[in-house]
Amino acid sequence: MRILLIHAKTFEYEAKEKALEAAEELGENKAGKFQNVLVVFLTVEKGDGSSPDVVEKAVSDILDVYGKVGASGIVVYPYAHLSSNLAPPEEAKRVLVQVAEKISEKGVQVSRAPFGWYKRFVIDCYGHPLSELSRSILPGVEPKRGYAD
Amino acid sequence: MRILLIHAKTFEYEAKEKALEAAEELGENKAGKFQNVLVVFLTVEKGDGSSPDVVEKAVSDILDVYGKVGASGIVVYPYAHLSSNLAPPEEAKRVLVQVAEKISEKGVQVSRAPFGWYKRFVIDCYGHPLSELSRSILPGVEPKRGYAD
Ligand SMILES: [Mg+2]
Ligand SMILES: [Mg+2]
Repeated sequence: MRILLIHAKTFEYEAKEKALEAAEELGENKAGKFQNVLVVFLTVEKGDGSSPDVVEKAVSDILDVYGKVGASGIVVYPYAHLSSNLAPPEEAKRVLVQVAEKISEKGVQVSRAPFGWYKRFVIDCYGHPLSELSRSILPGVEPKRGYAD
Repeated sequence: MRILLIHAKTFEYEAKEKALEAAEELGENKAGKFQNVLVVFLTVEKGDGSSPDVVEKAVSDILDVYGKVGASGIVVYPYAHLSSNLAPPEEAKRVLVQVAEKISEKGVQVSRAPFGWYKRFVIDCYGHPLSELSRSILPGVEPKRGYAD
């Protein structure tokens, strides 16, 4: 799994067009608009779905950054552009749902953008030292820290 | 090298704080504001600086997408978050300058954001099918295509 965490003053998105046959049905998460939010751009890599420790580590890292930056909520945003070793769509969807559920179980406000859609988005990244961080999380391996962080 | 290409309706950034000792001196590129632009988030990986073919392939891919989406300019934006195999800062800076110069040589309007700074940025991604693409470009290897593209 690869994640890019952006602490945003504002973030909004809207699903525009199906990108995959396996695209999720759209519900109330067709569009969203948020303030002071931690946006988690998340790429599910092959094998993440059979490694519960990957989801655990990701959620722990996400909540750690969420606490440090003082965001008021989290958006889990499917993102296929952080790795070339992509999981198949069904595995990716399952893992994305798990990450959002585990964040919610900790009592943190979380939204999940729909998988498999081309989306318009507007993000306003604060630009403070913790406002952009990345993590590569591999099964059975301690998380690799991002650059300058 | 890893690149993430975003076709943006608007894009603006401003350097806020040094992230690295090796941060570039700020000039008129301390901040920038653009419309209908192709933003190239670019991570220089180890070895890219000694492989001229990597820069050539990247510029060729960037100009190809630039033409297809009908952008009016290009912003080369240093981005350390697309890979865990980062080149040292001096190599990264050199490669970023080369990419921007080679784009400029083709007569295309190009700006380069400063290396080594925490930056605030606001991006408005169109959301059409070509508005987000990624490439992994390895020395001596044909570019790997992004997902759903
Ligand atoms: Mg950083
Ligand atoms: Mg795409």
